[in-house]
Formats: sequence, structure tokens, C-alpha cells
Amino acid sequence: VRVLLVGFGVVGQSFADLVEHEARKLDHDYGLRPKIVGIVDRKGAAISPAGLDIKKALTSKKQSGTLEGLGHDIYHEGRNGVDTIKDLECEVVIETTPTELTKGEPGLSHVKTAMMEGRHVICTNKGPLAIAMPALMELAHHNGVVFKFSGTVGGGTPILDFAKKCLEGSTIKSISGILNGTSNYILSRMTTEGVAMEDALAEAQKLGYAEADPTYDVGGFDTACKLVITSNYVLGSSMSIKDLDIKGIAKVTQSDIEKAKERGNVIKLIGRVEKVANVAPQEIPMTHPMNVSGTFNAVSFDTYPGGEVTLVGKGAGGKETASSVLRDLIEIRRTFAR
Amino acid sequence: VRVLLVGFGVVGQSFADLVEHEARKLDHDYGLRPKIVGIVDRKGAAISPAGLDIKKALTSKKQSGTLEGLGHDIYHEGRNGVDTIKDLECEVVIETTPTELTKGEPGLSHVKTAMMEGRHVICTNKGPLAIAMPALMELAHHNGVVFKFSGTVGGGTPILDFAKKCLEGSTIKSISGILNGTSNYILSRMTTEGVAMEDALAEAQKLGYAEADPTYDVGGFDTACKLVITSNYVLGSSMSIKDLDIKGIAKVTQSDIEKAKERGNVIKLIGRVEKVANVAPQEIPMTHPMNVSGTFNAVSFDTYPGGEVTLVGKGAGGKETASSVLRDLIEIRRTFAR
Repeated sequence: VRVLLVGFGVVGQSFADLVEHEARKLDHDYGLRPKIVGIVDRKGAAISPAGLDIKKALTSKKQSGTLEGLGHDIYHEGRNGVDTIKDLECEVVIETTPTELTKGEPGLSHVKTAMMEGRHVICTNKGPLAIAMPALMELAHHNGVVFKFSGTVGGGTPILDFAKKCLEGSTIKSISGILNGTSNYILSRMTTEGVAMEDALAEAQKLGYAEADPTYDVGGFDTACKLVITSNYVLGSSMSIKDLDIKGIAKVTQSDIEKAKERGNVIKLIGRVEKVANVAPQEIPMTHPMNVSGTFNAVSFDTYPGGEVTLVGKGAGGKETASSVLRDLIEIRRTFAR
Repeated sequence: VRVLLVGFGVVGQSFADLVEHEARKLDHDYGLRPKIVGIVDRKGAAISPAGLDIKKALTSKKQSGTLEGLGHDIYHEGRNGVDTIKDLECEVVIETTPTELTKGEPGLSHVKTAMMEGRHVICTNKGPLAIAMPALMELAHHNGVVFKFSGTVGGGTPILDFAKKCLEGSTIKSISGILNGTSNYILSRMTTEGVAMEDALAEAQKLGYAEADPTYDVGGFDTACKLVITSNYVLGSSMSIKDLDIKGIAKVTQSDIEKAKERGNVIKLIGRVEKVANVAPQEIPMTHPMNVSGTFNAVSFDTYPGGEVTLVGKGAGGKETASSVLRDLIEIRRTFAR
């Protein structure tokens, strides 16, 4: 399988590294021999139809922040994603550029172009999906390509796959989730240590859990993206992030947390969809399986007749998310083979 | 799909009821039209190649404890499982008789006979699997039939399916689980309310969570059965329950629980397999996702590179377990259709 990697940040690099290290196992267990024929980052594109030297690519990126270490015949400075997707022959395009929520770019153009060129697409970028998921599903169908995005929800925790593959015959009545590790870290610190929100946020930033501008996480937008994707994929809705009522954790106070505690509850940032979807801080019982600490994510599916089932795992991380990309690639490979 | 139900207790009745109520949905969503052509209980067998009247069967069982209400041409007093399996034409045999751990009977004979007759088998009875799982897997393979047993582990929580279908490309390094609701209820009550073990057990018995003879649950044997099944199915081991070191919760004291608490831990009855498998009370951190309360079950898969993923849900219950049987039936139907 020839693969073009668009985006070479933490997830892209982790995936390249994973494929390099697990090559023998992948071939043995799944008959999968991924060949990375192109990598595009912000600065340019590295291309080799015979397959790139992954170790060299990773070293170059680490040392210079670019792929120029691969040499002038391979590295093309200034070459962008869309042009590379159009020109380079491959079966699968993996989109891992950062999430952007006003227009979903450049991810949206990457995904669309890849589909129109007949490439299967794996996407870990939430932007294109939060904004235009129904259209993209339709475009994939129309072009006869597989479109997978397991890494957008739950990092390495297979939340979407679980709902699709393991709950057959049951009706999913509602989905609730703690989908943002940063917010959950902050609320957990406020709850268990009585830390003030500003201090918990500063800690999260120091530990690398939160960005310098924390709005995306703390304002509930990351949770909203993941809820849109989960609801559309699992329940067949056709939402975009604009359809959601979104409330972040900024106004949660120590006093709210204390009052919740007196009721035997904790406050969590919950994305929930039953008939409508929304994101807001909510109280849940302390004994509920979704009461997870630190940066964990947790999603509860309320099913009939199977009852409530909750999945808990790390919601982020380069190598964890790379494992989701790999799962998607194995599934695409299997679809081919049929 | 013609189905023979062997065993008509809580799970068997819940399944019959579920199929009756969800008939339209099953046909619409999966093209599945299950027809129950036979039901065997302790007292006899009801048989109708055209399909039994399920409502009548459920009413008869509730009123008289037998299936005699279906009438003399349909109900055959004293007719047993093995003979019925041999004589009645059907595609799938569903075995839901109670777990028995010395010889696995009568479940083991039912399952073997069904396979030798070329029937696909769904089993919620842990006995045959705890004792002879490798042989049964082999027998199913040899006879070209599908053998499913989702309901044996986790009730309605799809633990086995999750491990098989959602963790591809990852290596499972170890599996740990809280697999017995009764023991977890007792330990939870001892931990959060300081109740003595005898009193917590009496409560569990009063609430219907524990049998009059609690050895099977409290002694760790139920956990051991589920661990054997999970390990064999997910990790490809070839264990029987005799290969396990099994320690129940009988010797856990309030003082043990207090000491654990001082270390930030709780004591749980854990079944664990890494290189070897064992069942024993273990300390886990209070903040661990497996620290579930009441009768919940929880299983953690430690995976590379996806990290630790934990699944939590009700571990028992008639209609929950029936949902697992239905999932298995949908999967068998799909295997046929290929």
C-alpha cells in the first residue's frame, strides 16, 4: 500500500516511526506492507515513488524542522499538499495537519482533493469533519473510496470502532463523553486538590497538556468537534459544529464543585447527544464509570438492551493516535482485498 | 435462521422475549429473521418446525415452570437436550444452561453434539468453555461451524468482541479485569461504608446478586472462568480453569482495606493474564478506571502503542446477556451470507 502523509507533526512522525518499527508484524499479521511514498509538511514535500527513507526523514525533521535532509532530488521546498496529492500516485492519503475551525483548512482541501483523485483517506484532523462531515461522507461514497478518521476521537482509544462494531443489535439511546483531556485535567485538579482554575490551567500548560491559547480545549470546541464526529458516524446524524450549543468550563467555580460534592457528584465537561447535542459542564455521580481523573477520556453509550457501556482511555498522544491511523489502514487494506 | 434454545432460564427467556419484540428491527437492519423451532428446559422439550409461539412459551414457563402450556403435540415431557439437538433441524443451537465446573455438564454434551451435527453454536454457559475450550474450538473448526460465546464474559458488555475487533494493529501486553459483580459489590460496600464482609454478603444475597452458596462468586471461580475464556479467545492461549491459581475474597479484612486506602488504593478481585494467569484480591489506585463500584464489571487491556483501554459495564443480567446472544446471532448470520 502506497501512502502519502500530509502533515508531519507529532502524529505524522509517530505513525512513520510505528510503521518502520512494526513492519514485520504488519506483514505477518495482516499482509500489510505500507510504503510511505510522500511526506508533506508546512515547508515542502518529500517524494519518492520507491518509498522514502523514514529514518532519514525523522532525523531531518528533528534536526532542521524540515525534510531537506532527504536531499534535493527528493525534497521540494515550497511544494504544497494539494499539488502533491494531485500528482503523486498512491492508494492512501493520511491527513494529520492541525485542526482549524473557521474553514477547516488546509485539511479540508487535502481531504477533498484526495477523494476526487480516488485515494482512500485517513484523517486525524478534526477541522474538515467538524465543518463538512456529511459532504465528505458523500464525496467518499461518490468516488468509491474509504474514509476513516478513528484518530479524531479518543486518540488511541477506539471509540468510533467500538460503537460501530461491538454494539450491533442494540439500540444506542444516547452518547455522553468526556472528550477533552485538558479540561478534565483542570477539573480533576480543582476537585481533588482544591486548586484554582487559573493555577490548574497554568499547570496543564506547563505539562504540555494545554496550548498557550487554551480556548480550543477549555472553551469546549475540541469536545464539540469530537461529539459531532461521533454523533454523525454512530447515530447517522448530519451535524456540523455550528449546530451545537457549546459551553466551556471557564465559569466553573470552586463553590460549584463543592456544592456538587455535597450531592455526591463531580463536575465534568460533557459532550452529550440524545435528540439534540450539546457541550457543557455537568454533574455526574462520583461512582459513575465516567468519573475518570487526569487527562483520561471516557465515553458512555446508553444502549438497549445491553445497558450502559463505558470506554475509558488516553484521549491524545502521538503514538496512541498513530495506533488509530494504523487500525484504519489495516481496515482499508482489508476492504481492498475483498 | 432456525434456532434451538437449550436452557430456558433467565437468559433463554430474555432472548426469546427480545427476538419477539425486536423482530421488525432485526429484519430491517440485518435481514435476520430468527425462528425459534425448539426450546429445551430441565423438564422437557417443545418442538415446532414451523416456529414456536413465543408468547405462549413464556407465559407457560412463568405460570407452571414448564413448557406444557404449549400443548401435547408440541411439548414432550422428559425429552432431553442431546436427543433434541440430534433430531431437530436447525441452523443454530443456543446453549444457556447453568454453569457447572466439575465436568461442564450438561452444557458440554449439548455443545459437542450440536457441533457434530453441523450446527452453529452460541453459548452463554461458562462450564464447557472453562473446562474444554481448546477442544471445542477445534471441534467447531473441524465441523465448519461458527462458535460464539460473547455472553460468557461481561454479560451485555462486549468485552470479547472489543478485544478482537477494535485493537487491531496493537499488541495486547496484558489483560486485567473485575469480572464478578457479586465480589465487587461486597468489596465496594466494605470500602465505602465500612460494612463487614458477612453483612455485605448477606446484603448481596438479599438483593439477588449472590447465590445461597456464594463459593462460585466469592471464591473467585466465576472470575477464573471468564479469565480463561478471555485469555484463550483474545491472546490465543490454551488454558483450562485447572491451570489457574485462584484466590477469592474471603480473607480480605477491613484492616487490609484501610491499609490500602492509606496508600491511595482500593482492593478489588482481579483476574489478570500477562505471561501467566491468576485470580486474586489486588490493590489498584483509587484513580484507576477499573475502580468501579457496585456490581459493575471492568476490563483493562494494556496495549502498545494505544495505551491502556478500559471497558466498563454491567456484567450480568438477563436482557443484557440476551443482547450478547443476539450480537452473536447477527454475526453468524453474516458469516452464512458470505
